Amino acid sequence: MVSASVVVPALIGVDWGSTSLRAWLIAPDGTVIEERKAGKGASTLSGHDAFVKAFDEVSGTWRAAHAGLPVLACGMVGSAHGWLDVPYARCPAGTAALAAGLRRPDGAEAAPCIVPGVLFDDTGLPPDVMRGEETQVVGALHLHETLRASSCVVMPGTHSKWAQIRGGQIVRFATHMTGELYAVLRQHSVLGRLMPGDAPADPDAFVQGVDAARDHGELGLPHQMFAARSLGVAGRLPNAMLADYLSGLLIGHELRAGLQWRAVAGLDSQPLALVGAPDLCARYQAALHRFARPADLVLDNTAPEGLLALAREAGLTA
Amino acid sequence: MVSASVVVPALIGVDWGSTSLRAWLIAPDGTVIEERKAGKGASTLSGHDAFVKAFDEVSGTWRAAHAGLPVLACGMVGSAHGWLDVPYARCPAGTAALAAGLRRPDGAEAAPCIVPGVLFDDTGLPPDVMRGEETQVVGALHLHETLRASSCVVMPGTHSKWAQIRGGQIVRFATHMTGELYAVLRQHSVLGRLMPGDAPADPDAFVQGVDAARDHGELGLPHQMFAARSLGVAGRLPNAMLADYLSGLLIGHELRAGLQWRAVAGLDSQPLALVGAPDLCARYQAALHRFARPADLVLDNTAPEGLLALAREAGLTA
Repeated sequence: MVSASVVVPALIGVDWGSTSLRAWLIAPDGTVIEERKAGKGASTLSGHDAFVKAFDEVSGTWRAAHAGLPVLACGMVGSAHGWLDVPYARCPAGTAALAAGLRRPDGAEAAPCIVPGVLFDDTGLPPDVMRGEETQVVGALHLHETLRASSCVVMPGTHSKWAQIRGGQIVRFATHMTGELYAVLRQHSVLGRLMPGDAPADPDAFVQGVDAARDHGELGLPHQMFAARSLGVAGRLPNAMLADYLSGLLIGHELRAGLQWRAVAGLDSQPLALVGAPDLCARYQAALHRFARPADLVLDNTAPEGLLALAREAGLTA
Repeated sequence: MVSASVVVPALIGVDWGSTSLRAWLIAPDGTVIEERKAGKGASTLSGHDAFVKAFDEVSGTWRAAHAGLPVLACGMVGSAHGWLDVPYARCPAGTAALAAGLRRPDGAEAAPCIVPGVLFDDTGLPPDVMRGEETQVVGALHLHETLRASSCVVMPGTHSKWAQIRGGQIVRFATHMTGELYAVLRQHSVLGRLMPGDAPADPDAFVQGVDAARDHGELGLPHQMFAARSLGVAGRLPNAMLADYLSGLLIGHELRAGLQWRAVAGLDSQPLALVGAPDLCARYQAALHRFARPADLVLDNTAPEGLLALAREAGLTA
């Protein structure tokens, strides 16, 4: 944290997701001078005025204090159900293409420019989409030159994203619904019934789940997930361990598929980076160790650096 | 349907599951003379008296009309949360072991005998459990001698069961949570949002989902399921087709894993039977055709035949 009285900020950046937002006052070197969080996610707001109001609440005082400071936002705020439906950039997409795709809502004084999401739709496979993670990729590549030529950037979350990078561009990516799958199975399926709500984290159970996916994943996830019940019913695992077993199993299935996908793309010997919330990245790194392929880099949210790099590329800030 | 005035029934059979029950007046040749259904599933009842009352409501008039007629029930009624916790029979389990494991609740005049479920717990893998499906297996093997020596019996459902049969015994089985997974994803995940509630069945979308699992299943189910959203977002599949795409994808993943599991067990050239509700079996058979391995037999619920065979083995009926 740098004192705001010394550093003149270069940008207001907003990572505006479906359920919440984080806003940053960003220094010219990418440092976050101040952070604000709010629950005003894009899916909780409807209509131009609601976004204007939420935007003003989170950034109004910053904008008043720093007249003319550029503002850049990424995430679901740019979706069809957000503030403005910003057309996707198509793979391969790098900093230049994303900066060229920035759009600003009409009719709002000092509305933010919004970063486009990215669409992968280049093969006979189903398309894939991201909004927000492209900015984290830009930030990670900006911070770590070693990732630019050829690498794989993994962003764990409700919808994890695996991005293949070549020449500073996202050439292909894949979404894994791991986090959401865990949540719905725990809250709404028979698997949650044996799991106490207040069990402490159990690293051993997590590793058992990861190893089950690694060693026997060919048995299929719809089968293996039933073990998060049958191990309890048969008294082989205490009920307090079942949730972490399920978490490990699901993350293990993501890694099993993702690492193979990465190998098929010829990226096996190239850098692997984890980007995201530290506690979640730690779980993924522990799981990657079980696959004997730990990440080379583990980075906290790189959206501030990504937003600054995109603002510079677009000429919004010096 | 045979006239009750002509045929003297041999057994009252009950398939008593978690959420509902079906009761049958069964003729000596296994024919169902009369069927009754009720919503009094085992998970909706609590305590001995509630089960006595529900049992009386569904079978009281039959028992009054046929004094001394034996009664046999299978399913979750025999679980820890059912009427009586009947200990599992362990694999390998056949008609004799299941008949030897019948138990009757104390203190109830004319309470049914209850069939034990089956536990598979013979390897380093997690255990697996079934309650009710073992009786369908007994019925299928009783009806079709060709299944006895060596076969695979698949019972689609909320929790599908795949059973390996050798020498008339269940030697191993695996649960796939396919039906429940579909329900929770559709009702509680982001995937359901684009799916209209009233779309007609779409066999083409179903086949597309099955083929995606067959051809690209190595990409992982947590990834592939996201296509049930991204195909809609990108306008590649009408929203009305997304639910059947997801259904096909999930069933396809079950078949991909199940057929490989069956092959590893050396059952590739042995008979494959589908047992269960005709509409669901038809979906599975359509999917099996996409894997070029259609079932050799497709049977409606074989629990009545199974209950009669078990009652005979136990000496309850002649």
